[in-house]
Amino acid sequence: MHSDYLNYLSEGIKSKKLTIAVVGLGYVGLPTAISFHVAGYNVIGIDKSEILVNKLREGESPITAEIGISIPNGSRWEVTSNYESSIPKCDLAIVCVPTPVNENLQPDISSVGSAINSIISSRISGSLAIILESTVQPGTTRKCINDAISDNQNFSAEIFMAYCPERVSPGEGGFGVGEVSRVIGAQSIGLANVLAELYGTITSGEVKPVSSMEVAEASKLVENAQRDIDIAFSNELAILLPKLGLDVEEVLSAASTKWNFHRHTPGIGVGGHCIPIDPHYYIEIAKKNGVSSAMSPAARDLNSSMPTHSAHEIVRFCGGEAPNKVLVLGFSYKPNISDSRETPVLPLIDSMLELGTKEILVWDPLIETSSLPDPIIGISDPFSHKDVECIVLATAHEKILEMDWEELKKTLLIPRIFDGRRCLEPSIFLEKGWDFHAIGKPLGREFI
Amino acid sequence: MHSDYLNYLSEGIKSKKLTIAVVGLGYVGLPTAISFHVAGYNVIGIDKSEILVNKLREGESPITAEIGISIPNGSRWEVTSNYESSIPKCDLAIVCVPTPVNENLQPDISSVGSAINSIISSRISGSLAIILESTVQPGTTRKCINDAISDNQNFSAEIFMAYCPERVSPGEGGFGVGEVSRVIGAQSIGLANVLAELYGTITSGEVKPVSSMEVAEASKLVENAQRDIDIAFSNELAILLPKLGLDVEEVLSAASTKWNFHRHTPGIGVGGHCIPIDPHYYIEIAKKNGVSSAMSPAARDLNSSMPTHSAHEIVRFCGGEAPNKVLVLGFSYKPNISDSRETPVLPLIDSMLELGTKEILVWDPLIETSSLPDPIIGISDPFSHKDVECIVLATAHEKILEMDWEELKKTLLIPRIFDGRRCLEPSIFLEKGWDFHAIGKPLGREFI
Repeated sequence: MHSDYLNYLSEGIKSKKLTIAVVGLGYVGLPTAISFHVAGYNVIGIDKSEILVNKLREGESPITAEIGISIPNGSRWEVTSNYESSIPKCDLAIVCVPTPVNENLQPDISSVGSAINSIISSRISGSLAIILESTVQPGTTRKCINDAISDNQNFSAEIFMAYCPERVSPGEGGFGVGEVSRVIGAQSIGLANVLAELYGTITSGEVKPVSSMEVAEASKLVENAQRDIDIAFSNELAILLPKLGLDVEEVLSAASTKWNFHRHTPGIGVGGHCIPIDPHYYIEIAKKNGVSSAMSPAARDLNSSMPTHSAHEIVRFCGGEAPNKVLVLGFSYKPNISDSRETPVLPLIDSMLELGTKEILVWDPLIETSSLPDPIIGISDPFSHKDVECIVLATAHEKILEMDWEELKKTLLIPRIFDGRRCLEPSIFLEKGWDFHAIGKPLGREFI
Repeated sequence: MHSDYLNYLSEGIKSKKLTIAVVGLGYVGLPTAISFHVAGYNVIGIDKSEILVNKLREGESPITAEIGISIPNGSRWEVTSNYESSIPKCDLAIVCVPTPVNENLQPDISSVGSAINSIISSRISGSLAIILESTVQPGTTRKCINDAISDNQNFSAEIFMAYCPERVSPGEGGFGVGEVSRVIGAQSIGLANVLAELYGTITSGEVKPVSSMEVAEASKLVENAQRDIDIAFSNELAILLPKLGLDVEEVLSAASTKWNFHRHTPGIGVGGHCIPIDPHYYIEIAKKNGVSSAMSPAARDLNSSMPTHSAHEIVRFCGGEAPNKVLVLGFSYKPNISDSRETPVLPLIDSMLELGTKEILVWDPLIETSSLPDPIIGISDPFSHKDVECIVLATAHEKILEMDWEELKKTLLIPRIFDGRRCLEPSIFLEKGWDFHAIGKPLGREFI
């Protein structure tokens, strides 16, 4: 049965005669579904949100608009909220649902459990491989699928399991679904190899089969826990080095001439659905297994403290008193995307308000003002304000970097700018008469 | 005066008519002195050890023998313990003395202070640049030189200051004095630029002038603190992942397919004169400045715990009881060099003895048995023993990797090997009938 299914998949990859369900149509799932459609397969996108499904049926999505791809139509494309009508038609189901943390920073995999349960309870017979892409702890894929099978009585379908962690980096050229390298583990090496072929039809990157789902699950946690630690060390340097009269950027550039140094740019904090979240999955499983993982929690603390640290730096920059009115440029968590999940700009604004700032305006050229959360006051025109005492560059969108700084300066009460992303050249701003400060830069004195 | 001296240096670099003192003739200083000699300058090597100076005069040195270079002779080369006779003849003095930590893990820069004081008290007149290469905290070069000048009355020489951190990686091809990139900071940009030219005559790597000595000092601490953290995270994974039934090497190989992942190999611990030491310089200066640097101390703790962790793994491997007699292969801290400063093999052996092992033999093909510290019993022939119950591969010297494992196996009471460096292919050893275990590998069960 197993080898029959592998042969069937293998043939289907060659002929593109496979029907693939993609469950969860967000930043990962939607581009994945579209990629499989573009590659020639029949694709059914499933999302529990009927509002989203209806919008996608109308061809609307901020996610695809941002990446510059279109939502397919035609007989090989379908979007639905209904598992029961769609799952029985599928050969494979790929699960791309969110795996956040709860208010206690504990892993919350309820969406994975619920998606897998919906798939399995909708599948009465035949063979189906379920591939999970969401970030989870080692053992989760196996357990969730086995639990769902146990929970469904009268079950006679044959379910195969695999795990292939998503790796897209939205907004960063060259790291979309069609380009990133992948890792895939499955319940058998044979299945991992066949699924590696499948993913090889949507990405130009390497697809590496590994010996188990658990290896693939662990690799994703390890990647993001390492990245959080590396960024945290850069951020720690952005706090320490200015106290010694040194600019973190100059020191990092010097260190980067060493062959094995890893350059990371410090900033007001990290955000998004991976770096602030995945390390908690790592930390919890380490703790559960009695390994005192001190670096990853320290990195989380450090990176989480950057918005507050930045707010204090801004106040120091403004002579020790919080500026009354501030214009924040950028709200999303990283450049050139509208995604503001876990954005560090929100806690930065909260800290500024706590420190005494009375009014904060936010301009993000990629986010509609109506989409900004309370208490954020969004503006659609950065030149249409007055009495601003300090500008804070919070996200290095190209549209921000390319704005008319001279025009902007004219509208300010005080021409003061704090670069929270180290994306502006200080000398240019200083020459043009701005008061300039930046994260990791000494304020005032330059040496010891 | 400053510009006269710069012109003089600049001309002297072109014509090679400069006399350069190199103070401290160890792993860094000796190759540096020889490199400047090879480049065509007059070089005076200074070391306070008369025994060392006499050996070098006889053309003997384990350091040069290891790198495969020879000790020069002729009129442009001199070695001495006498600052007073040599420093007055020099145009530049480069200081390469050790900067260790004391028993409380606090920076000990007494050798730097003493070398700089000896240079300055021997220099009565004329211009001299002192370039420090030893790892120090930002501000140290400036302070040590200024202190020495203040301490020397009737001082009329003109002293210039610079800092150029050493970066050689002994035993690693392509990272010797003649190849590594360098960073250099000086009391003026003009001096930094001229000295960058000077170093450019001994290395094919980039030489980057930076805006101050302090930037260069900080860059070195940052490089090694980061490396210690990165290696520590790999080592933490080598402790955690086997508890989940996963092999750290497979997970790291999977993660390495991601474009921004940094691969480090876990092992029995780190050693040498940089990684276990320099982070303490970083930790102390962070603490002094009120920055709670939690990652670097956590990394130090983790890396320092690896020898003990490894000893416990070996005991688990041997069925829960410490093997009576163990043969350790390798003693130096990294492959293909004889340097055993801060080697993790020593605490590993201590732990094994504490856990109940009665006899430990050590074979290191690069270290003479007489040079091994107590209580190490060195052997010169790894095949000339009996009753050994476990082999521990501690240093991945090529001469060890290439040894006749079949012959070795015949001499063992139990054909058991623990790979502390992940340099052996498990399947090959298992096929040939060895009991095999390695750092970061699950023992027994393979999955969850």
